[in-house]
Order: sequence, then structure tokens, then C-alpha cells
Amino acid sequence: MNKTRHPTSSDLAGFFKPKSIAIIGVSRSVSSFGGMSFLNHFLKAGYPGTIYPINPRADDVQGIRAYPDLASLPEIPDLVMIAIQAPAVPTILEECGRLGIRYIHILSAGFSELGTEEGAILEKRVASIAAEHNLLIMGPNCMGPYCPAAKVTAWGAIPGKDGGLGIISQSGGITQRLTEQVSSLGVGVSKAASIGNAAVLDSPDYLEYMADDDDIDVIAMYLESVRDGRRLFELAQGATPRKPIVLLKGGQTQVGAATVASHTGSMAGNQCLWNAFFEQTGVTPVSCMNEWADAILAFSSLPETAGDGVFIIGGGGGNSVIFSDGAVREGLTVPSLSPESMEVIRPMVPVAGSIAGNPLDLWETFVNGDRLCDLLDVAYRDPHVHMVIVDRLIPRIAFHSAEMPDPTPGIIDFIRTCDKRKPTVFTIDYDGGDLELNAQGAALRCRFCEAGIPAYPSFERAIRALAHFQRYHHRLQKRTSRNQSFSEGA
Amino acid sequence: MNKTRHPTSSDLAGFFKPKSIAIIGVSRSVSSFGGMSFLNHFLKAGYPGTIYPINPRADDVQGIRAYPDLASLPEIPDLVMIAIQAPAVPTILEECGRLGIRYIHILSAGFSELGTEEGAILEKRVASIAAEHNLLIMGPNCMGPYCPAAKVTAWGAIPGKDGGLGIISQSGGITQRLTEQVSSLGVGVSKAASIGNAAVLDSPDYLEYMADDDDIDVIAMYLESVRDGRRLFELAQGATPRKPIVLLKGGQTQVGAATVASHTGSMAGNQCLWNAFFEQTGVTPVSCMNEWADAILAFSSLPETAGDGVFIIGGGGGNSVIFSDGAVREGLTVPSLSPESMEVIRPMVPVAGSIAGNPLDLWETFVNGDRLCDLLDVAYRDPHVHMVIVDRLIPRIAFHSAEMPDPTPGIIDFIRTCDKRKPTVFTIDYDGGDLELNAQGAALRCRFCEAGIPAYPSFERAIRALAHFQRYHHRLQKRTSRNQSFSEGA
Repeated sequence: MNKTRHPTSSDLAGFFKPKSIAIIGVSRSVSSFGGMSFLNHFLKAGYPGTIYPINPRADDVQGIRAYPDLASLPEIPDLVMIAIQAPAVPTILEECGRLGIRYIHILSAGFSELGTEEGAILEKRVASIAAEHNLLIMGPNCMGPYCPAAKVTAWGAIPGKDGGLGIISQSGGITQRLTEQVSSLGVGVSKAASIGNAAVLDSPDYLEYMADDDDIDVIAMYLESVRDGRRLFELAQGATPRKPIVLLKGGQTQVGAATVASHTGSMAGNQCLWNAFFEQTGVTPVSCMNEWADAILAFSSLPETAGDGVFIIGGGGGNSVIFSDGAVREGLTVPSLSPESMEVIRPMVPVAGSIAGNPLDLWETFVNGDRLCDLLDVAYRDPHVHMVIVDRLIPRIAFHSAEMPDPTPGIIDFIRTCDKRKPTVFTIDYDGGDLELNAQGAALRCRFCEAGIPAYPSFERAIRALAHFQRYHHRLQKRTSRNQSFSEGA
Repeated sequence: MNKTRHPTSSDLAGFFKPKSIAIIGVSRSVSSFGGMSFLNHFLKAGYPGTIYPINPRADDVQGIRAYPDLASLPEIPDLVMIAIQAPAVPTILEECGRLGIRYIHILSAGFSELGTEEGAILEKRVASIAAEHNLLIMGPNCMGPYCPAAKVTAWGAIPGKDGGLGIISQSGGITQRLTEQVSSLGVGVSKAASIGNAAVLDSPDYLEYMADDDDIDVIAMYLESVRDGRRLFELAQGATPRKPIVLLKGGQTQVGAATVASHTGSMAGNQCLWNAFFEQTGVTPVSCMNEWADAILAFSSLPETAGDGVFIIGGGGGNSVIFSDGAVREGLTVPSLSPESMEVIRPMVPVAGSIAGNPLDLWETFVNGDRLCDLLDVAYRDPHVHMVIVDRLIPRIAFHSAEMPDPTPGIIDFIRTCDKRKPTVFTIDYDGGDLELNAQGAALRCRFCEAGIPAYPSFERAIRALAHFQRYHHRLQKRTSRNQSFSEGA
């Protein structure tokens, strides 16, 4: 395998903005997964470049002129997508090499992930042809490149949303969900690479590229394995001071690791080593899809935090108790407000049935937007408060509250225009079966998210995201102050 | 305080099915929280008994004849709800005692939760009047009784759904949300008691009552504190072999405990003691609202499980890896299927791009209901499998799948009519901002839940609920087998 020579960053850019794409293996069945469904999705997304379907038994496919093979094309395509049976892949790669095609995505499965000798040999053959011809190969067994700015969106959110997120993933399915989830909540994707078995280009190659890409602010990774762990470690350590990396590591348990072997044909590695990796690189570890997306939302939207003190604004004594417990369990603090803040707050809060302080239990915050903005203003001035989490309610018949004008526009406007703004997130829960309430909850979350203010479906998810966010900034600040003392001392 | 004399179980029944209710403190402001909003909610819910508004300055309230005081009523009301300023409460209680009224709910706040000497003295006064007159008092500082079968639903889900859940809670707000959440997902409530500061009747009194109530199958508790911990312990230990108890304990951290003091004026207690409580009683510990509702859904709907082996059916290799990790982290196992099962399954699963085994990665399960039922049938026969978790997808443009007829009715029908059925739950996630997809996800979860098949919005929530469920049954089975060996040995 190509152990020593790594592609340069500029090399990988070619995957994401190809002007022409040849798709090999466009079966005639419209419903089946493969070259044809990729072709259809490119058409749906309005990909502006040229698509060359390769099919020796058809003159055109979906109204697009088809060619019998790569050699017959009128030009050398920027990118080739291979979606044929695995055993036929090496022959195509040899042809790519001969024609001078460099960028290749192998969609096909049937390599080392089968767990057979035949599959392993086939995958080694892919790597050796790549080394021989200097081919840049994404895959096999993966969805390939994704880039909304170039409308290279044959999977994931379609047509997708351009933005600052970079994704490197050994699971196409998870990455499809991630791009959809974050895009619909206002966080666009710059580039995603679904890298599958990573037989040639591996996660460190993509990480090196995305760490240097100025269009990317936050990097999300889903990894099951890595060949050159040391290189991943060094690249991650070098990248985290510049941009956060949020890593969902698959195969952290024995059963998960066994499943990894069937999925991408790789070894998931030792969990202790991965723990050390997180500890020493400052990469943010998450363990499921929602935790991944939630952290990304926080990293992509919030201004830096100066500390771990959360001000919890909501209503309901039980919630205030449970939320406080939850915040502390996540490693954050729920500090007492400053005497100055308490002086402002006390007159706002009834003595009975509410709690003036942190957490703040004041039912009025749910219905009176101005009152909430007053409280946010207090929080943004209070030196003990570094982040704010606001619990919102959707109206329910069970609650004893009157109808009021919609306070949301005023709240959003206040936060967006406030120059003292500290990281502020909202929670709007609804997980019951009333479809109308469910729709109200989702719509309200959406309004905040689209305004760049993260809104989560539960306090627990919100506080976990804030905790990840705070730990990243805390590490950065420690590092900066260490460097400063060092240079002052020197 | 009434330390020695405990009310009998039959005593407490009177709170939940009163034929007449007097409400004291019906202010004229329609929008404010208090007696008036309770009155309005009783009217909305269609409470069939007689309501007596008590207001010395009005002849009628909302078209209902009002009375100046309790003594003027034409009968002794079954239940009195007090919603006046705290300092005026003792006088009313004395009057109740004189008139022979026994069941009293004190809605009013302003007692020990204020943290003032005055508040503490007032609460002691409530307790001593109760002891003197043998009054049964729910509260103060709480929402009181709730019983959908009797339409005593002035808070919580309105009109609510009758069912097998009993709730004992020191937070009205949390309990409102819980009744709404579970009722809308097909799990009805038999009786709920929002007990607030619990100055007279405390959680052990309600637990003793609900443990003996045959209409109640599952007990949910939210507690911040308890005066007689030993009695709670013994009652819980006696109850768990008959019905599961799911306890959300507030104030598990220092900040949470400080908030408890402001909320219900009590001491949250030592966390180590509570851990021992859970360990030794078999009460299920949860730490947030959704975990509470999710566990209740599992306990209320699923048949007993014979072990900890989960069969994970879904699609996507990455998901299969993450789900396996998640199940093992929750203390469950993901066993290999029996050779007989593998023989049936192998021909169903393509060699490349899928995983035949446990977890099962087979895209076809999402679109082909018959295929999913075949797999469930295999799971229900396989001795290694004790529970099944099925990941469902809602269609998204990012996925490469064709439209198919709706497989859900066939799946629900198969599970409901299968006599070998093992505990089976579904996960249908969608947390993005696309409102149509969000609605589809919620509607699909609802369809399963209404059919008595729990469906959760994430795998993590589903597996946590199954883990709670399995630990409860495991403990029961250990206990039974220990008792059997003992009687065989004797």
C-alpha cells in the first residue's frame, strides 16, 4: 500500500468540484441503488457539469448520451465514479491509469468488508494499481464526494446548503443523515467525503486537506479505523487549535468492533488508545448521531465562551432542579448570579411559586418576550455567567397560561443585535404523540436555528452540546495562556 | 408532625374521585394562575360533579353559583382546593376541621420553599392543624390530584386518558408534561398526585396506596426529598415485585439540591444513600423527563423479557456499528444468532453492502414489510434473542430508495397477532429542520405507539428504555428462582 507518499492538500480539492463526471455501471433498473440512482440524483440536484454514463449496451440513459467505455469519451473526465461488481473494478482502474484519469470514487462494495480472502486480495489490488498509476481513490464501499457549492450532491441533503462544515466519514448512511439534519437547521456543508474502506486515501489525507481549507470552520468525522494512527494523531493535534473536530468513533465496544469488520473490513482499534487520542488532541468525542449533530450546531453557531458557568432560564421548579442536576453532571457549573444581577432580578420574580437566582424559575419568561430579553441582558452583563440556556414551552392545554402575542421575533432580534451576546441556546421539547404540538415544537426550534441560535429538542441534548463546546474553548484558552506565559518567561 | 399515624390506602382513594369540589380563592382575573384557572380547566374537561366556587365578593363565577365561605355550602364537599395567599390557609384548614371536611389540596405556594422562618412556621402550622383534625392534605405548593377516569383533570393531559399509570410527584410542571407525553402515546393515567412540599401526606403514603391499587400497573415518581426514608424504602421494596416503579430523583447534585430547597423547601438527601436505595429496592432510576417517559412506555407496553439479548434490525453499516456500541454501553448484549436463524437469514441478505447477522444491516427492511416480518419471526424463534429493536426510516431525498407501498399496517398486524412475540420496539428518528419530514416521523412513531408498540425518536433513547426494562425483569427472575431454590431446598 502507498505508505509513504501522501497526496498534497491541493490534490484532494479535485474531488469536490469536478466539471465532468463519468459514471460506470449505470444499470437500467431505475429503482436499484448504484450508478443509475447516482445519475438521477445528480440530475435532481441540477449538477451543472457534464455527466457521461458508461454503458456498453445503451446509446443513451435518461436522455443523456451514453458511452461504451472511458476510452470513447470526448474528454478526460475530472472524476470517475465506479458502480460495477467488485471483481471488475481493477480492470477499470487500469484503464483510468492508462487514460490519465486521476480522481476516482469506487461506490462498489465487495472488498475487504466481506471478510473473505478474495475480498481482501481485491482490495490490495486496488491499492497497488493506485500506487502504480498515482490514482487518487475515494473508497471502495462508500458514497464518495459531496459538495453543495458545486452541486456535487448525489447523496446527502439535496440540493444541500453551502456552509462551513467539513465531513470525513466511513459511513455513507450516517453522513446522509448528518448533512440533512444540519443543513435543515441552518448549518451548511462545504465538503463531505464518504470514504468507506479507505483502501487508498485514508482519513488523515482528508483531514490534512480540510484542516487547511479556509472554507471549512468545523470538521465532523465518523471513523471506524485508521491505518496510520500516528499521522491522524499529529494532524488532529495540529488542527484543533484552528478549528474544532467532532469525532464519532464507531466500534468502541467488542460487538461494535466486530460489526466494523463486516462494515468496512477494518480493525476498530483499542478503546484505551482512542481515549488517549481524544485527551491529547483536543478532538471532541461523541457517541451517537444526535450528539454529533448537536455539537456541530453549537460549534458552528456560537461565539467563544469565556468559562463554564451556565445561567438556566426557565419555568417550573422541578425542571429547574432536574436541569441543574443535568448541567453539573455534564461538567458545567450553575453559578450564583452577582449581587448586581440579583438586585435587578429580584423585583421581577414573585416570592411564592418561582425561584429568583440561577436556575431562574419564572413562568412569565414563557409568555413575555420583553421580560426574557431583560433577563438575557442581565446575564450578558454578569461576570459569573458565561453561557445561557433558555427553556421555551409550546402552549399546551395542560398548562395554566393565557394566549399572548408571539414573543419569538423580539427575542431573536435582541440576541442577534446584542453586542455583549454570550453563547445562548434554547431548548424546546416535545416528544409526545400530539402531531400539532409536535409540529409547533419543530417549527419553533427551526426559527431559532435559522437565525443562527441553536435550539435543541431537550435540555439534556442542549447541555451536552454546550459542555463539548466549553471544553474545546477551555483547552484553547489554557493553551493560549500557556504560550503567553512561555513567551513572557523567555 | 403526624409521624406515627399513617392514613390507610382506602383513605387516599377519596382524593381522586370526588363528587363535589369546593375551590377557595377564585380570583376574577381569567388569565392568572390559581383557583380560577383550575375552575376553567374543570369546566373544559367536563368534570361531572359539583363545583363550588368560594368567593365572598361574587354571587356567581363563570356562570356557576359562588358561595361566601365553606360553611354556607349546601353540603360537605368531598374535596376542597385552596388557592389563596399562604398566610390565610391555616384559618381555612381550621374551618375544614370544624365542618368535617377531610380531603384538602393546597395549591398555594409560600411555605417552607421560601427559605424564610415565616414560611417554615406556616408549614408547621398546616401539619399541626392536619394532625389535630385528622385532615388529609395534599401539598402545599402543588397541582394536587389528577384522575382522568373521574374527569378530575384540571391540569395534566385534558381530558386525559384513563390507563394503568400511577404518578407521585413533587413537581406539577414535570407531571403535566409526563401525563401529556404518555397519554398521547397510548399510555393512560389511573391517578396522579402532585404533592409539592408534602407537609402532611408524604410520598410513602401515596406509594402505599398506589402499590395496592389494582388499577395501577406502573408507578412513576418524581421526588426531591422524603421525610421517612426508611418507610419509603420498605414500601418500594415491597412494591417492586408486583409493579415497576420508575423514579426521577431531583437534587442529585449540589446545585440541584440547593434548587430543591427553593422549590419544595426540603433537603434532597445524600446521593450515596439514594444509590443504595435504587440498588436494594429494585426501583428504576432515571435522570431526565424523556428517560422517565421512555421507560414508562416500555414498562406499560411490553411483555416480559427472558434475557438481555437484543436483536438489532436496521440498515446502514455505520448505524449498525453505532447501535451495537450503544446497546453494549447500556449493559445489554447483542448475541450472535443461532445457526438455524443464520440459515434462514443468509439467503435474504446480499453478500456485498449489507451485514447478515446481529446487528442486521439490510436496507430492504425499510421498504419491504414482509421481509421485516420474516426477520421478526426468525427473532421470535431464536433462543439467543430476547428483545428486538427495529430502526425505521422516513423517506428522504438523500436516500437512494424507490417509493413503495406503506409497510406499517402489515408490520403492526404481524407483531400484535404473533403469539411468540418478544419485547419489540421501534426507533424512528428525525431531528432536522424539515417540517414535513418531522411530521412524518412523529406520525409514524404515533402509529406504532397507539398500537401498543413503543416507538422512540432515537436508538439511544430506545435502548436505554429497554435496558431499564430488562434490569427490572432480570431482578424479578433472580428473585423468583432464589425463592424456588429455597423452597425446593427446604
